[in-house]
Amino acid sequence: MISREVQLKQRPAGMPSADDFTIVETEVADPQDNEVQVVNVCMSVDPYMRGRMVDRKSYTPPFRLGETLTGGAIGQVAASRAAGIREGDYVQSNFGWREAFTAPADQISPLGKLAAPASAYLGALGMPGMTAYVGLLEVGALADGETVFVSGAAGAVGSIVGQIARLRDCHVIGSAGSAEKIAWLRDELKFDAVFDYHGADILAQLRKSAPDGIDVYFDNVGGDHLEAALFHMRPFGRIALCGAISQYNATEPVPGPVNLTLAIGLGLTLRGFIVNHFNHLAEKFRSDMEGWINSGQIQHRETVFNGIERAPEAFIGLFTGENIGKMIVALD
Amino acid sequence: MISREVQLKQRPAGMPSADDFTIVETEVADPQDNEVQVVNVCMSVDPYMRGRMVDRKSYTPPFRLGETLTGGAIGQVAASRAAGIREGDYVQSNFGWREAFTAPADQISPLGKLAAPASAYLGALGMPGMTAYVGLLEVGALADGETVFVSGAAGAVGSIVGQIARLRDCHVIGSAGSAEKIAWLRDELKFDAVFDYHGADILAQLRKSAPDGIDVYFDNVGGDHLEAALFHMRPFGRIALCGAISQYNATEPVPGPVNLTLAIGLGLTLRGFIVNHFNHLAEKFRSDMEGWINSGQIQHRETVFNGIERAPEAFIGLFTGENIGKMIVALD
Repeated sequence: MISREVQLKQRPAGMPSADDFTIVETEVADPQDNEVQVVNVCMSVDPYMRGRMVDRKSYTPPFRLGETLTGGAIGQVAASRAAGIREGDYVQSNFGWREAFTAPADQISPLGKLAAPASAYLGALGMPGMTAYVGLLEVGALADGETVFVSGAAGAVGSIVGQIARLRDCHVIGSAGSAEKIAWLRDELKFDAVFDYHGADILAQLRKSAPDGIDVYFDNVGGDHLEAALFHMRPFGRIALCGAISQYNATEPVPGPVNLTLAIGLGLTLRGFIVNHFNHLAEKFRSDMEGWINSGQIQHRETVFNGIERAPEAFIGLFTGENIGKMIVALD
Repeated sequence: MISREVQLKQRPAGMPSADDFTIVETEVADPQDNEVQVVNVCMSVDPYMRGRMVDRKSYTPPFRLGETLTGGAIGQVAASRAAGIREGDYVQSNFGWREAFTAPADQISPLGKLAAPASAYLGALGMPGMTAYVGLLEVGALADGETVFVSGAAGAVGSIVGQIARLRDCHVIGSAGSAEKIAWLRDELKFDAVFDYHGADILAQLRKSAPDGIDVYFDNVGGDHLEAALFHMRPFGRIALCGAISQYNATEPVPGPVNLTLAIGLGLTLRGFIVNHFNHLAEKFRSDMEGWINSGQIQHRETVFNGIERAPEAFIGLFTGENIGKMIVALD
């Protein structure tokens, strides 16, 4: 079996471009004892991957040039020599950016019975959904009825954050980057207030949408969004530091907010996290989220690019705002 | 009775100067029913007061020009018409920056039996000591044996932070601003490592003193100290944001740390606080701290200026590093 795979040809300088990637073909080995061969159905591109393209120490080691990239993927087992895993089973793995692979069974996670289309397990039911869930409820320590601001609100994480907050009777404000996104958040997801951040005075928008201030800010963007939110937090507010997509392509150090000292008098908490810090909540998350999706309480939307050759384009699109909801590369 | 009092003549621009203050004389009224007349024994000058000299919204309203300043003071009751308060009793109040005053009994706090000299209740046993206590133990969520970095380590707060951490078997690193301070921290307070931040590469000092990183950073300074600490935090480290004395006299907005996004992958918590957020711990604090002081486990040191007319000089000295331990203005 042949797998087409995406490798990093050179490290992006600033905004990534198609030239930074290359497609190679690899022969996928037959599985040996305790191995499975998997054909990927879809793969994920996520903003965090930009960090791994830089050659520096971080919480995950950098991608290497000339090796196939990795990331979340959902596949179906094509051949199995591992106990309990059968042909046709859906499995989750970190062997994305490729069409197929063979790996030890302990490096993949059988998904069991699916409650939604497979790709949802890369989105609302996968890493981004769980990021929203733990970031809002655990890191943000959300209480019912609070005022929540989420940036990047039309993204894979942000759109789930806002909807969970709505389920908790919160007043939800979101920022996003296009009229289509704004309309979706307002009309379909029923956010209480939304604004397009392009050219906006973010602080003025927050003052208008949340006159009494913000209890929880879920930060996907960093930069001017974080600074504006800090200016408008209520006493004892919490800021969940999830991402800083506005800064991921910066080529110079980006100064932090000028108003971090406001945290002192207001007793604010800023807490960073990644989803892996909360693996102990994975089962509860899946159960809650499958319930919310099946009851229609949470909607999930995808922007789909078809074919492994379009994976770089899909990835770059994360930084130019191409996606509404989860960005998916379909491989079947 | 005549009280000499300090008023703000004009709002300081940048570093405060003696010209910003003026001394006035006021007649202190005799106490009426439920009032007490108090002669102050000593008064406090604290860095937070700089913030109140700026005309802006903050957690305490700004000082007004042409009114007597306020702040912590310890006095003795000279005359009382309030039940349960007798002549000679020591009381704590916010009627500092003056030699004497008359006030309703509910605006002063009787200190009861003193376990240390009265001025200690403005320092180790007062607001700065309790700031250290709640900031390290509650906000910093200190665990025994962790590695703690405290900036402004020779100050009223920092010197107590380091000593409490030592009592908890922690590895304690402190920064301070003079050879005399460094010697005191190293030789008397038994900090594990200390460095003079003047001209120092703070990050290099931290790497040397705490090769495995920092669990808790108690931030009194902000600016380059905070940025360096962020670069050297261990996973799930906590930063207690207590003060930012390096920025209090800034006349332009000061950018925040360039590396705040490190908090994401490391799961760091930055939490601001002021001591009033923890008033429910006041009794436990006093009991613990009196025990530590009486047993000699915690030392407290003061830098004393004598006379109300020197209060502005003492206050300015906070920003030029004149104090070792608590800065006190003695009034008796």
